[in-house]
Amino acid sequence: MATLIPYFQQQHREYIFPVIDAKLADLKSRQADVQILNFGVGDVCLPLVPAIRQAIIRAVEEMGEEGKMRGYGPSNGYLFLREAIAQHEFSSVNISPDEIFISEGAGGDTANIQELFSASSTVGILDPTYPAYLDSVLMAGKARVVPIPCTEENGFCPAPPDVHCDFIYLCSPSNPTGVAFTRQQLKAWVDYALKEDALLLLDHAYEAFITSEDVPRTIYEIEGAKECAIEFRSFSKTAGFTGLRCGYTVLPKSVKAWLDGKKVSLNPLWDKRQSVKFNGASYPIQKGAEAVFTPQGQQETKEQINSYLRAARTLKDGLTQLGYTCYGGVDSPYIWWKTPNGMSSWEFFDLLLEKCHLISIPGRGFGSQGEGFVRLSAFTTLDHVNLALERICAMQ
Amino acid sequence: MATLIPYFQQQHREYIFPVIDAKLADLKSRQADVQILNFGVGDVCLPLVPAIRQAIIRAVEEMGEEGKMRGYGPSNGYLFLREAIAQHEFSSVNISPDEIFISEGAGGDTANIQELFSASSTVGILDPTYPAYLDSVLMAGKARVVPIPCTEENGFCPAPPDVHCDFIYLCSPSNPTGVAFTRQQLKAWVDYALKEDALLLLDHAYEAFITSEDVPRTIYEIEGAKECAIEFRSFSKTAGFTGLRCGYTVLPKSVKAWLDGKKVSLNPLWDKRQSVKFNGASYPIQKGAEAVFTPQGQQETKEQINSYLRAARTLKDGLTQLGYTCYGGVDSPYIWWKTPNGMSSWEFFDLLLEKCHLISIPGRGFGSQGEGFVRLSAFTTLDHVNLALERICAMQ
Repeated sequence: MATLIPYFQQQHREYIFPVIDAKLADLKSRQADVQILNFGVGDVCLPLVPAIRQAIIRAVEEMGEEGKMRGYGPSNGYLFLREAIAQHEFSSVNISPDEIFISEGAGGDTANIQELFSASSTVGILDPTYPAYLDSVLMAGKARVVPIPCTEENGFCPAPPDVHCDFIYLCSPSNPTGVAFTRQQLKAWVDYALKEDALLLLDHAYEAFITSEDVPRTIYEIEGAKECAIEFRSFSKTAGFTGLRCGYTVLPKSVKAWLDGKKVSLNPLWDKRQSVKFNGASYPIQKGAEAVFTPQGQQETKEQINSYLRAARTLKDGLTQLGYTCYGGVDSPYIWWKTPNGMSSWEFFDLLLEKCHLISIPGRGFGSQGEGFVRLSAFTTLDHVNLALERICAMQ
Repeated sequence: MATLIPYFQQQHREYIFPVIDAKLADLKSRQADVQILNFGVGDVCLPLVPAIRQAIIRAVEEMGEEGKMRGYGPSNGYLFLREAIAQHEFSSVNISPDEIFISEGAGGDTANIQELFSASSTVGILDPTYPAYLDSVLMAGKARVVPIPCTEENGFCPAPPDVHCDFIYLCSPSNPTGVAFTRQQLKAWVDYALKEDALLLLDHAYEAFITSEDVPRTIYEIEGAKECAIEFRSFSKTAGFTGLRCGYTVLPKSVKAWLDGKKVSLNPLWDKRQSVKFNGASYPIQKGAEAVFTPQGQQETKEQINSYLRAARTLKDGLTQLGYTCYGGVDSPYIWWKTPNGMSSWEFFDLLLEKCHLISIPGRGFGSQGEGFVRLSAFTTLDHVNLALERICAMQ
């Protein structure tokens, strides 16, 4: 008899999206012509830029030419893309192309990495954070989870805990709080990992939104990080690839773990995992990702990021002027909005939906410490931000 | 300390591709101008057909239009594609679109499915077979593996074993033997699964190559299969998607497994696994896959399959006429070539490489029962087949 893993015996978190969908459907059934402002799901909205479109189209056309068909690619990604990434993103920290693994997305990578490690591992997870970390940890049979609260008191950037963890998931700039660890804060985590013989799993999907001087562009800027940190990156938010699918994992050869009483390099083991369970990312999509690093691609994608950042700043400033307390929005497209008058996440969500026809995400969907906040995504236009601010002002 | 899973403590199979690459490099270093005929890796070579190219290009152009950007899609795939598959491939067996899960490839799915099941499961695996099944089973912590020999005596289509298995991986038409289970043979497996409360994991990636009347086009043609079988399908070999990446898993709602003393439907649990660990297949690639089912797409892709099948038949007939013993090649692009004079897989591989400059795959790379055979892939042109036959004839 086929027996399922215990993970499925219980619901491990509140699934908020079906609830949001139901509330939205209810509103629409009562007010059919309502204009909804969607600040909910963190998904790009601006059109795919020309440099990327042209590169994908060229690759697809090429595949139609005699003798130029591309079949299976390398499971770790084409060298042209790994070289472009190494050169443009990591040249100052000496990451080589064979320390970069292309995938169909960073979300999958942050979850799949658990497959390498023993079920007896203790995993530290920030609260609130991107919910799939916890699910993938529990799905991989790891029962020992240490929640690490991100609160107003610690500026949503907690110091390492007093207890031992074997791995810690960090997400910086954070989804959902929009706050980024500074160099000094991240150094404390690297020091902790080296002392505790732990690994840091840094989800750096929002790296392109960093504007603050004291926030590192890669964790490998910090001494010792190459011995203890895996950095996950994505083209999703950087270049509008959420629907195209391409990300990558940086795994320096000097990052090691224990196998049979010895410390061994993880790099060839992740390579092996990928070769068994993944047949490589789509060739035309990898060509599109390569185009991100051309001068045209850089200019076009940076314009979009700046547009989202302008929306985030306008939104945050507007809310602040209206007397609300907000975090994030500087190094991130996310605003972490404290609910007024001690309202719960869901109460404030309901109010915003009913009064402003605005969709937010209740903070508790990201963990218990997210209660008392909602997340707004500024992956939207300035027009929508201004309209939202008008409606919020009118609500008061 | 981060501790690795025991899987990595040993090499679980002979990795033949690096050895093949080294032997090829050695040959080229001795004879630089040699024309290699590659009948090794099972990868498509004909150009991507116009219907698919046009659909992908249209989708990419659409993503550049104001308001038409596509971000995250459903993790189980767009409904337009699931509907097209249900209608064109499964209408006679009543599989609904919500029993189909789109992915970035069937290879990943056949491996990932293991993540749902307890490590104490007993898994039956054909020998020889596609090597990633065993790796993914061991990687998921399952130590109890029952090898099921596919031999000349059983026509490479073994009957179910006398012992209990919780799952059995079947690959039909088989990679590597090229032989397909008949309806009657497959029925014996369905009966076994129902009796043993087991699940069949059918890799049906080569379904489009089936020509024999008595070979089912889907396992759901067989009564009872909807209670015990998961069918994995791919656009890779069907429509030249090895480099584009798109496949799907068919999981009828009536397929169940044990959870906490009760039998529960797997369909929503696979959906949950996908939503946690996979963010959906690439939108333009899904549009390309949809185009496979248009009249133009059907005609163009079927022409390519017929071309590969003609190559396979010509190759098999030619080798047979030269006095060799070959299997497969009727419902499959693969020829399973028995080595002459009791040569080993590697000895015959070496001979073919040295004398004919032809790359094959030593059968033992697919399991111990593959010893004494090499696999030839007919994903090639008739010209190359004829050239290969000339060289093989001259070798004798």
